[in-house]
Amino acid sequence: MISADNITYHSLKDLSPFLAQKRYSKVIVLCDSNTVEACLPYFNEQSQISMDHLIVIPAGERHKTLQTCSDVWQQLVDCGADRYTLLINLGGGVVGDLGGFCAATYMRGIDFIQVPTSLLAQVDASVGGKTGIDFNHYKNMVGVFAQSNAVYIDTAFLRTLPPAELRSGFVEMIKHALIADRAIWEDMQSWPTLSIDRLRTSIPQSVQIKHNIVVADPLESGLRKQLNFGHTVGHALERLILSRKQHIRHGEAVAFGIVVAIALSRLILNFSSVDARNIVDYIRPFCSQIPSNTDISSLIEIMRSDKKNKNQSIRFVLLKSIGEVCTDQEVDEQLIINCIEESIAQF
Amino acid sequence: MISADNITYHSLKDLSPFLAQKRYSKVIVLCDSNTVEACLPYFNEQSQISMDHLIVIPAGERHKTLQTCSDVWQQLVDCGADRYTLLINLGGGVVGDLGGFCAATYMRGIDFIQVPTSLLAQVDASVGGKTGIDFNHYKNMVGVFAQSNAVYIDTAFLRTLPPAELRSGFVEMIKHALIADRAIWEDMQSWPTLSIDRLRTSIPQSVQIKHNIVVADPLESGLRKQLNFGHTVGHALERLILSRKQHIRHGEAVAFGIVVAIALSRLILNFSSVDARNIVDYIRPFCSQIPSNTDISSLIEIMRSDKKNKNQSIRFVLLKSIGEVCTDQEVDEQLIINCIEESIAQF
Repeated sequence: MISADNITYHSLKDLSPFLAQKRYSKVIVLCDSNTVEACLPYFNEQSQISMDHLIVIPAGERHKTLQTCSDVWQQLVDCGADRYTLLINLGGGVVGDLGGFCAATYMRGIDFIQVPTSLLAQVDASVGGKTGIDFNHYKNMVGVFAQSNAVYIDTAFLRTLPPAELRSGFVEMIKHALIADRAIWEDMQSWPTLSIDRLRTSIPQSVQIKHNIVVADPLESGLRKQLNFGHTVGHALERLILSRKQHIRHGEAVAFGIVVAIALSRLILNFSSVDARNIVDYIRPFCSQIPSNTDISSLIEIMRSDKKNKNQSIRFVLLKSIGEVCTDQEVDEQLIINCIEESIAQF
Repeated sequence: MISADNITYHSLKDLSPFLAQKRYSKVIVLCDSNTVEACLPYFNEQSQISMDHLIVIPAGERHKTLQTCSDVWQQLVDCGADRYTLLINLGGGVVGDLGGFCAATYMRGIDFIQVPTSLLAQVDASVGGKTGIDFNHYKNMVGVFAQSNAVYIDTAFLRTLPPAELRSGFVEMIKHALIADRAIWEDMQSWPTLSIDRLRTSIPQSVQIKHNIVVADPLESGLRKQLNFGHTVGHALERLILSRKQHIRHGEAVAFGIVVAIALSRLILNFSSVDARNIVDYIRPFCSQIPSNTDISSLIEIMRSDKKNKNQSIRFVLLKSIGEVCTDQEVDEQLIINCIEESIAQF
């Protein structure tokens, strides 16, 4: 199942010839209640494919559950999907992650294609073969590594997104630049605004960074851990806020996580203070809502139980410099607390 | 995830050194309500390992469900299982298939070891990386291919089985002989009874046949289909009987499936009528309960929806001769009906 050699296309017009080659017994499209209206008409018009069946799930992370999988599997059974059926996941991260998981487990795996419609899904979730669902509020606790057969990234979908969603997705592009390529990072800083025209040319670069890492390490045994830069604190913050029945966008949480990781990088790996200042200044507007009364001890507790840790020690991905990453950095808890406090004060 | 290079040990005493090499953060054992009593004490005594946590699920195929998986995942979360945790599945096919699936999907995959305790699981289910659960009465509809890290086959567990279970498992050994090795088949016919001493020496041969096929084709794209010999009708019969809330052992259903497949092989591939007669005579006692009023049109209907088919045509694995297999044989439905009728009459 793991090959990490999925193909990325930037036009939906390529989908029809792709399907013609493959001769699937059925083509089924999975949408959520948003993308079925906002994206499916454009998808149909551009791709000109004929689908055999449409499955629609309710939109939102809170539906990224086993119950929704169960509904999808049942519809696959009901419409006679066999092993030679293709599932096309048209939507953001939830549709891609959950649809990928359903496909990877239906009859022990059928082919699937990702058509990500959010910026976050286009530059991050759709590439790399991580599929899965949340389990009793634990994010992505149940899932498998399974490569999609292709990813179609069409920036026209981004016009359907609220600006805050666009900013959230862009944080992953900042992350890619910081872990891999100073030139991209410097170019980003010169952009006057976050325009879709700009994104059209920069998304392929960003996806390429992730793709190269994933191909080298599909199962996250080494190199791929670099992609967790900013995510140790980011994920913990998401979970803390979720546990209070509130919501924070993934990118906002990761933006804060990057600020903390940069502070730790300065202290532990002597990361340049000039670069650190630039990064924090640049990234601050991407995270507007870190409450000053954030419960740091709860954050620490959540980090200890993060599935990327071993034996409950807390590990970070840190930077020696832009493009130079050190993974598996065990950090003393008091130091983490200090850096989180310092980072909150900067917002 | 797919490598098909799992190691098979025939003594539980080898488990402890295996674990010492691997340095897992936790070792968790999964049993069902039968094996926790009938097998766990012997397992502990022989292996001398110290487990961190025990998970017990209710015994029986009807618990091979998403709900049971959910309970297992929850216990894994509750006991702090991380990515470096090992799950040991101690039981028959249900424990192995479900436990393997839970491990392969928990945090996108943790290591697991199979310790099969039934003959069926020892010679079939534990080898080859097929994991999964039933979904709304569809057998193994949800699952993944995931190789265990090792399989421990100890024939002492077989003493805990009722004779009918032993006979059921032995049908898979007959199948292995028929598809791969005339010498083993001829040797089998000379056995006076099905003794555990005999099995101790013949199980490794039988497992080897399956292992060789699986290594060559882990994802069932070609060669591996040979292992479905006898299973087209066998699975359909199981499902038909299950749908009537009755029960038939897997091996009994496959024994009947083999008889039908041999009849078809004679008609379509000119399989030797002498061999056919020997096989049917030999295998008949392994399937005692084919009702003469079996609803053949329902059987056909179920076969059409079998997940191994493409576009609802019914495909068989047939024999040209013993050890010479032809897969993907599309067979005319009327011919199937005739052969099923003929086979029922022989019981």
